[in-house]
Amino acid sequence: MNVTRELAANLVTSRLEAVPADVRHEARRSILNYIGCAIGGCREDAVDIAIEALAPYSGAPIAAVLGRSERFDPLRASLFNGIASHVHDYDDTTPKNYIHPSAPVLSALCAYASSAPVGGADFMHAFILGFEAESRIGNAVFPAHYDAGWHITGTAGVFGAAVAIARLLKLPQQNLVWAIALAATQAAGLREMFGSMGKAFHPGRSAESGYLAALLAAKGFTGGEQALEGPRGFAAVQAAKYDLAKVNHRFGQDFDLRENTYKPFPCGIVIHPTIDACIQLRAEHGLTPETIREVKLKVAPLVLDLCNKKDIRRGLEGKFSVYHAAALGLVRGRAGLREFTDEAVNDAAIRSAREKVTATGDPAIAEDAVQVEVVLADGRRLVKNLRHAIGNLARPMSDGELEEKFRDQATLALPLEQVNALIALCWKVDGLADCRELIAAATPAEQSSRRRDPARAGAGV
Amino acid sequence: MNVTRELAANLVTSRLEAVPADVRHEARRSILNYIGCAIGGCREDAVDIAIEALAPYSGAPIAAVLGRSERFDPLRASLFNGIASHVHDYDDTTPKNYIHPSAPVLSALCAYASSAPVGGADFMHAFILGFEAESRIGNAVFPAHYDAGWHITGTAGVFGAAVAIARLLKLPQQNLVWAIALAATQAAGLREMFGSMGKAFHPGRSAESGYLAALLAAKGFTGGEQALEGPRGFAAVQAAKYDLAKVNHRFGQDFDLRENTYKPFPCGIVIHPTIDACIQLRAEHGLTPETIREVKLKVAPLVLDLCNKKDIRRGLEGKFSVYHAAALGLVRGRAGLREFTDEAVNDAAIRSAREKVTATGDPAIAEDAVQVEVVLADGRRLVKNLRHAIGNLARPMSDGELEEKFRDQATLALPLEQVNALIALCWKVDGLADCRELIAAATPAEQSSRRRDPARAGAGV
Repeated sequence: MNVTRELAANLVTSRLEAVPADVRHEARRSILNYIGCAIGGCREDAVDIAIEALAPYSGAPIAAVLGRSERFDPLRASLFNGIASHVHDYDDTTPKNYIHPSAPVLSALCAYASSAPVGGADFMHAFILGFEAESRIGNAVFPAHYDAGWHITGTAGVFGAAVAIARLLKLPQQNLVWAIALAATQAAGLREMFGSMGKAFHPGRSAESGYLAALLAAKGFTGGEQALEGPRGFAAVQAAKYDLAKVNHRFGQDFDLRENTYKPFPCGIVIHPTIDACIQLRAEHGLTPETIREVKLKVAPLVLDLCNKKDIRRGLEGKFSVYHAAALGLVRGRAGLREFTDEAVNDAAIRSAREKVTATGDPAIAEDAVQVEVVLADGRRLVKNLRHAIGNLARPMSDGELEEKFRDQATLALPLEQVNALIALCWKVDGLADCRELIAAATPAEQSSRRRDPARAGAGV
Repeated sequence: MNVTRELAANLVTSRLEAVPADVRHEARRSILNYIGCAIGGCREDAVDIAIEALAPYSGAPIAAVLGRSERFDPLRASLFNGIASHVHDYDDTTPKNYIHPSAPVLSALCAYASSAPVGGADFMHAFILGFEAESRIGNAVFPAHYDAGWHITGTAGVFGAAVAIARLLKLPQQNLVWAIALAATQAAGLREMFGSMGKAFHPGRSAESGYLAALLAAKGFTGGEQALEGPRGFAAVQAAKYDLAKVNHRFGQDFDLRENTYKPFPCGIVIHPTIDACIQLRAEHGLTPETIREVKLKVAPLVLDLCNKKDIRRGLEGKFSVYHAAALGLVRGRAGLREFTDEAVNDAAIRSAREKVTATGDPAIAEDAVQVEVVLADGRRLVKNLRHAIGNLARPMSDGELEEKFRDQATLALPLEQVNALIALCWKVDGLADCRELIAAATPAEQSSRRRDPARAGAGV
């Protein structure tokens, strides 16, 4: 079985017209969500530090970092885009392999497309192919690979970036085999980095390394011919168990993009049901903080293992407090980046609401579910049993909800009017004559480096 | 046990004056050997292609590639130096962990020292510390890590480069911990690349990635605090068995540099004994091709498994022919880069000598030994029993032999007079006020990009 060569053949012969319409729409949703995440994170410390450290080593300033006005060479811009897009841990996920799939691929593609003319259809096609290659290679080694300690977003991501850039460079099959090989031999990223800036470094470096692999292969730099399936190749070396048949099975018919999910709230996923249920209760009953006497949560026991802290002071702590989660939903009816700042955590109304919340672990409650009981000042009791939180495959975010999330993120760096225009461009990205129009709309009109109310995320998790 | 923090402490508190004189001399030998390899390989296809592909992405042209006149930013120069120094598979090796130790460390250091003032003592000290960190981390995971398919020169090399550059940047302990972490999370390189340019890519990319790790950490980009020993850290993820006590045991007292070895011939190591014995026979008896009727080799059986081809046409084939090995020793009395070109393989005198050679596998002959019997035209028989080939720890190359190897390599790119001056500088490197003197001597005086008689190695093995 020559997995690598077959994958290259599948990629080279792919045609965008053969990609079903629903998959193309999911690509637009992923692109929208990615750009929002990249802009929302572009002023974080991790990005500032990386730029300060590496700007002196950048080549010709022809490529953009989304949300920022500086320009770098496309490889460095890929790195910075990748860090920004993952720094809040707010980007997309494919639940079946734990990959954050868009960041590595689109960080490279946006850097490329900001520095050279790329048609929207080619851009979308390169994204879809990069996504599929990355996710399918991830499927082949998951879960053993992830369980061993690999941050699969980094290790699978480098393939996605390499394949996407190789597509734009129109690499023939043999060179694509080498690009995949040179990606494989750079596949890296340890879960030991979780909790540090090193985690967001992974999608950035995989974007940059995959891009570099494609550039080298395009000029004839050779790699092993069986980088995926060889006895010393990616799968054998980096996974105790693997099934390489998953790489090419029904390629071009089944699309992993259909199983992409978007995170509605920038915090621990186990408190999403609580936020969701409380937002719904507030909307359905027109709740205000004064009307609430008490809030009782029944949650999966895991929630209390991970998020049981009520007396909190820092935004980062809020991301892992089920009490803060309930308070946000009930008081603000939303939980965007601005709800996990130090300021929000110390806001008097939210703090007061938090103190009214109690939580009980109940094994009968699934991790994706919650029961919220609100006791009102007048003695009435409102109960919400939520079976699936917004954002997962069973209850995907709507296009409108994705837009709302996008606005929350992108307005940290860009004016609302520009943000709305950018949203419109994302929905028609595959129709653009030149994606530089998209990138221009995703970067500030004027030179500016001041920080605008950054929602400081600190370390991702 | 906090291995990473302890290693950082050992590195930060190290003083060059405390390094024994024999270790410092071995550092000079390693530097000499590395620079010769880098210059000798600098005109190979792999280097030309990498430069062609990536030059447009280079930053300010302030750093040198040894042997060449172009300038790049120091990160890219690290990459190109690393590819060049390993492309002939002619660089040094520490037999106990299979690492080619100098290429990752010195490729980064030479790039740095070509772009900024670095005193010779600091340069040597940074090299020794990078070498020790890399080799000791390699020891901790060897052999399971290598056996699994990792090209340990890439995976351990990134630590060596990070530590060396961090030393020049004077990173304090905490930042050094992060530099080691950001190195760990880039540790990559698959043995599946052997036989392609991807193999030489490894020391290059590890030099560049380690350098980048140090730059990021210097500015406060954080990584995991237990990158080596954590449950999802380098050792646990990348080795089925490991012993992290080896990282810091007797640090500053024992030096792996003492166990470095230099390759005398740019070909498969199993045919080194045959070359060595034949060179000695030629010198001892003043042999000329006409005087030789027949040559009978008794070799370890493995030699015939790997190098049993007599009818050869290409230089690369000559690297794996025990018949060519014998012919070179007897006809030319040497086996440098020029003896493994297509021209040398097709040289009439060498071809004729090759045809007179027969070889028998004998389990009684060790892999490092050979018995050569030469039957002369006048009927006399000369027999040489060689127990240890030149170049291994039992019979290290002398300083003079290293110089001879260096001349063979460096004169491919530089005039002999300059090469001799460069050798003199290498022997006193730690006394230099500014290593830019060394780098200037290792690059062409004038702009020139023509190829000079390159010994084309093709794919390394």
